[in-house]
Amino acid sequence: MKLYSYFRSSAAFRVRIALNLKGLPYEAAFVHLAKGEHRAAGYGAINAQALLPTLDDDGKLLTQSLAIIEYLDETRPEAPLLPRDAPGRARVRSLSMFVACEIHPLNNLRVLQHLKRALAQNDEQINAWYRHWIADGLAKFEADLAQGPGTGKFCHGDAPTMADCCLVPQIFNAQRYQCDTASYPVTMRVFAHCMQLDAFDRAQPSKQPDAEK
Amino acid sequence: MKLYSYFRSSAAFRVRIALNLKGLPYEAAFVHLAKGEHRAAGYGAINAQALLPTLDDDGKLLTQSLAIIEYLDETRPEAPLLPRDAPGRARVRSLSMFVACEIHPLNNLRVLQHLKRALAQNDEQINAWYRHWIADGLAKFEADLAQGPGTGKFCHGDAPTMADCCLVPQIFNAQRYQCDTASYPVTMRVFAHCMQLDAFDRAQPSKQPDAEK
Repeated sequence: MKLYSYFRSSAAFRVRIALNLKGLPYEAAFVHLAKGEHRAAGYGAINAQALLPTLDDDGKLLTQSLAIIEYLDETRPEAPLLPRDAPGRARVRSLSMFVACEIHPLNNLRVLQHLKRALAQNDEQINAWYRHWIADGLAKFEADLAQGPGTGKFCHGDAPTMADCCLVPQIFNAQRYQCDTASYPVTMRVFAHCMQLDAFDRAQPSKQPDAEK
Repeated sequence: MKLYSYFRSSAAFRVRIALNLKGLPYEAAFVHLAKGEHRAAGYGAINAQALLPTLDDDGKLLTQSLAIIEYLDETRPEAPLLPRDAPGRARVRSLSMFVACEIHPLNNLRVLQHLKRALAQNDEQINAWYRHWIADGLAKFEADLAQGPGTGKFCHGDAPTMADCCLVPQIFNAQRYQCDTASYPVTMRVFAHCMQLDAFDRAQPSKQPDAEK
């Protein structure tokens, strides 16, 4: 398997964690998001959405991080990343999608660039935007974890799931932008628990071969 | 089953289509998004994420539209909304998530309100923002449909899937904001095909009991 990745892509980070949790070796191909390499014609032939990550599984090209993780779970069922029961699966998907649909899309690179170029926002204003959506999102995520009877050592139960694959990159982003995370004790306890696992630790941006200072 | 819905919520619209396609009757409970009823404490006990929709399936509370559709497909497998093969399932999920993670989050109500209140954008500027992300997103969606060998009468094959449940509400939004859709012929052909089906037609905002002019 080959993963098209960029060290700072949160979506690629999710899939790196999933591959590590499942013990699946992969080759990495690096696409430099900040240099716009994802918009090059060559990459467009691989991923029409012009986004990271793409997983090439023996010629099958898979896109969108959560779709890739579901595919991995269906085709390599060992170390499952979704529970067996339908309500549990729904909860893990909901937590995952909360991060992927409600927090992350507002803060990704192309949105920040658009705020700068089209809305003439300065760095301070862009940081305020970033922190606003992190705070709004993590408060709701925390409420969901605190309220949900399924929350365990991880987001759902005592084994890592797709929801943890989504949460951890989001917390890395929050920390990178110096967001206050003290108000989210359940979330941060789960995050700390995840980071004790090698699968999460090895997937982090600074440990990727294409990492920059 | 009870669906917490709002006529203009795209995410609720997705689930209304899915319930109709599966022929599942449901009771609707209306939560007025524009009046902020989703942020009331009572609804917070039902949906900690303070978002629509929520599906109450005999006391099991399910959140996030795509997680709900997956749950319905797992618990009511007739009229499947995902293909049987793993790569096909991955493609349908990827197209669904492209809408749910890349287009819709940038244009939902709370983002438009934030642009107005915190960034002092006027109506014209907000419309420009809206159309920018619709155009950016639909161009990539079109490329994906045009490039994907799985595209049929619907987004994937000749039967409706979760991807169509996501696409149709997004096109309704595009039309509501007078976005030009002529550049997306494959997408619009699929949309037209969907709208010939009663399941899609009955789910549209203007046909809901809580619809406003």
